[in-house]
Amino acid sequence: MGMTMAEKIIAAAAGKESCKAGDIETVTLDRLMSNDGTTHLTIDMYNNLKNPHIADVDKLVWIIDHNIPADSPKTAASHKKMRDFAREHGITFYEGEGVCHQVMMENHVRPGELIFGADSHTCAYGALGAFGTGVGCTDYLYAMVTGTSWLLVPETIRFNLHGKLKKGVYARDLILSIIGKISANGANYKAMEFAGDGLKDLSIADRIAICNLCVEAGAKTALMEVDEVALDYLKEHGREPKALFKSDADAVFSQVIDINLDEIEPIVAKPHFVDNIVPVKECEGTKIDEAFLGSCNNGRIEDLRVGAAVIKGKKVAPKVRFLVVPASRSVYKQALKEGLLDIFMEAGAMVMNPNCSVCWGACQGVIGEGETLISTGTRNFKGRAGHKDSFVYLASAATVTASAIAGYITSAEV
Amino acid sequence: MGMTMAEKIIAAAAGKESCKAGDIETVTLDRLMSNDGTTHLTIDMYNNLKNPHIADVDKLVWIIDHNIPADSPKTAASHKKMRDFAREHGITFYEGEGVCHQVMMENHVRPGELIFGADSHTCAYGALGAFGTGVGCTDYLYAMVTGTSWLLVPETIRFNLHGKLKKGVYARDLILSIIGKISANGANYKAMEFAGDGLKDLSIADRIAICNLCVEAGAKTALMEVDEVALDYLKEHGREPKALFKSDADAVFSQVIDINLDEIEPIVAKPHFVDNIVPVKECEGTKIDEAFLGSCNNGRIEDLRVGAAVIKGKKVAPKVRFLVVPASRSVYKQALKEGLLDIFMEAGAMVMNPNCSVCWGACQGVIGEGETLISTGTRNFKGRAGHKDSFVYLASAATVTASAIAGYITSAEV
Repeated sequence: MGMTMAEKIIAAAAGKESCKAGDIETVTLDRLMSNDGTTHLTIDMYNNLKNPHIADVDKLVWIIDHNIPADSPKTAASHKKMRDFAREHGITFYEGEGVCHQVMMENHVRPGELIFGADSHTCAYGALGAFGTGVGCTDYLYAMVTGTSWLLVPETIRFNLHGKLKKGVYARDLILSIIGKISANGANYKAMEFAGDGLKDLSIADRIAICNLCVEAGAKTALMEVDEVALDYLKEHGREPKALFKSDADAVFSQVIDINLDEIEPIVAKPHFVDNIVPVKECEGTKIDEAFLGSCNNGRIEDLRVGAAVIKGKKVAPKVRFLVVPASRSVYKQALKEGLLDIFMEAGAMVMNPNCSVCWGACQGVIGEGETLISTGTRNFKGRAGHKDSFVYLASAATVTASAIAGYITSAEV
Repeated sequence: MGMTMAEKIIAAAAGKESCKAGDIETVTLDRLMSNDGTTHLTIDMYNNLKNPHIADVDKLVWIIDHNIPADSPKTAASHKKMRDFAREHGITFYEGEGVCHQVMMENHVRPGELIFGADSHTCAYGALGAFGTGVGCTDYLYAMVTGTSWLLVPETIRFNLHGKLKKGVYARDLILSIIGKISANGANYKAMEFAGDGLKDLSIADRIAICNLCVEAGAKTALMEVDEVALDYLKEHGREPKALFKSDADAVFSQVIDINLDEIEPIVAKPHFVDNIVPVKECEGTKIDEAFLGSCNNGRIEDLRVGAAVIKGKKVAPKVRFLVVPASRSVYKQALKEGLLDIFMEAGAMVMNPNCSVCWGACQGVIGEGETLISTGTRNFKGRAGHKDSFVYLASAATVTASAIAGYITSAEV
């Protein structure tokens, strides 16, 4: 019987010829990412171990991206703990270089790898054919100490993409539509695998945006076959695949869903659930206080190009704060080079350092009671961006930027 | 008997021919600046008045610069209160456009004006021959409601500047040297007036840096004669003087101090007092964790040029966070245009949005226990930049940048 991509990656990590959905496998991890959301907790637990030990320090990547630069002495202490530990043990360490998943994609993720990240959006790594999954800091600690962990092999929902997104429709609209279709629980503990002839026209940026958001449908991971587009990206970034896997023709999927990309429209996820989606036009006119272009989902150069094209020669509405946050230093530098930051600054946007910013909602661009944010961030549950009685709408870079200009939710003219 | 500049400005604001140090005068204010440090308190008090009223709304300028973008729901609520009130009453309002004093210099301050600012570094406005002084929010409220206030006319210490600063020595070194010489209480409730042939070679950026820091010697205000350099700046920014005052030849000064600019050396103010100054070489080798180039004192384009020239082609030390924070949107845009932000980003610095940042020490770049910051900010008292047991050294843009590269305090090679 054939195997899915997820099964093949787990089997390889378990040192086996095969495994199947429902099996529990002990796996050796290829890489272990952790950020300043929880690393200080991991370190505290580590220091309380009887025989503290790191199985393979070369597999660890630690990234300060959530509250950077530090917003309080408490954060500064947490960062210092992480920084000092990383230096002492020789852990690969990034600080202020960008949102963890973007830094991982640019520098570390390889096709075929099995990666634990102490962050829910680790499923983004599927864009390069890696099995990334989010874990809590206790699971992280176990993996860090032993180099291994266990996995219940997930079933796979296969999405066959056909056709091409229309002009003015983006990967963000696609994945929001999919989550809306299957619901926020629609892929609980499943692997969401994307394949089909529609994949070839999706850039790596698009693919990351799609895979990244799969956890919002409850997915254990997201996966895409590695094609020329992905191999080119790897080559540009000086890396080789660990292994190239794709699902066998006779692999068993729990569900197969065909998506016609041509039918996707600009979408907004309304408060307070990511699957509360409607076409942008149904929200048209909703007043906003803040707009956010950034995050591991939509802070790449491709997203900034979209936003800059929409806002060039226009101005941010007087009553709106518009935060533009490149997802990494390399994105920032590229945006500088292309003159995009000039365009945003000229328009009255606030360009921030690469970090999680208001998507994380804890130190930058926090919104107050009754305020409304339209965001390319990852989540819109109650209080995600600040006050418990505030409102977050999720949309594409184009819709967010067009709304920042208008002062209310609207789609970009294309 | 002749009058000082301070006496002339106050007399004019009191509608009198003359006044002298020691008099108490009722004055009409020309302008009233307030920022998000205390404006929410002013508004609360205003709303509790029996007959709330603004004497002259056109004189009010409100600026959000301290915790921007908002770092918490509490800050967001404070900003919202300020923003809503400003809009409702038609108050000139800036948000995220830069540090208040820089925004004021670029857009509002005119020679001869008497300006209250609810911020201690309002004395910066003396660089354009205006009497700026910091007030608490209660005094601010009174002035906002009545358009007037009272002043005890200050005595003046006159600083006659001679010669020229050597290459590699900056206005920051000069004013730190002066404060070191007269002490942190050396000008308590005095006006510090700067004149002499040495003034002509000091740019407006230099003059702001000098006047801005006078409050650290206890000064009520700082003043400089308006010359061609200042008039050119005003013309560039589309403004005319209110009045041009200078001290009479027979004005009475409490003290006259001659400063030979050629003798000034690169200076560091050590923790935890601004007058705890030593030549940079006496601190040489002190390890740092963070460096900060920015603030109302040293975040202008001239300062960024100095920093960029020092760091071009070099890298920030691996263990150092280097925050570069343009003082305003126009400074940021100019730095973009000149390629300075490219240089800083290439070197590994963290370029932030225009704001008070770690000079304010409450939301951005906060340092932890035992950490050391070298800063172009305004203050270095215990806990100013974060944890109560942390250390702040103050120095010029050149020294700060050179130290960021070295990883320890050192002066820039020139």
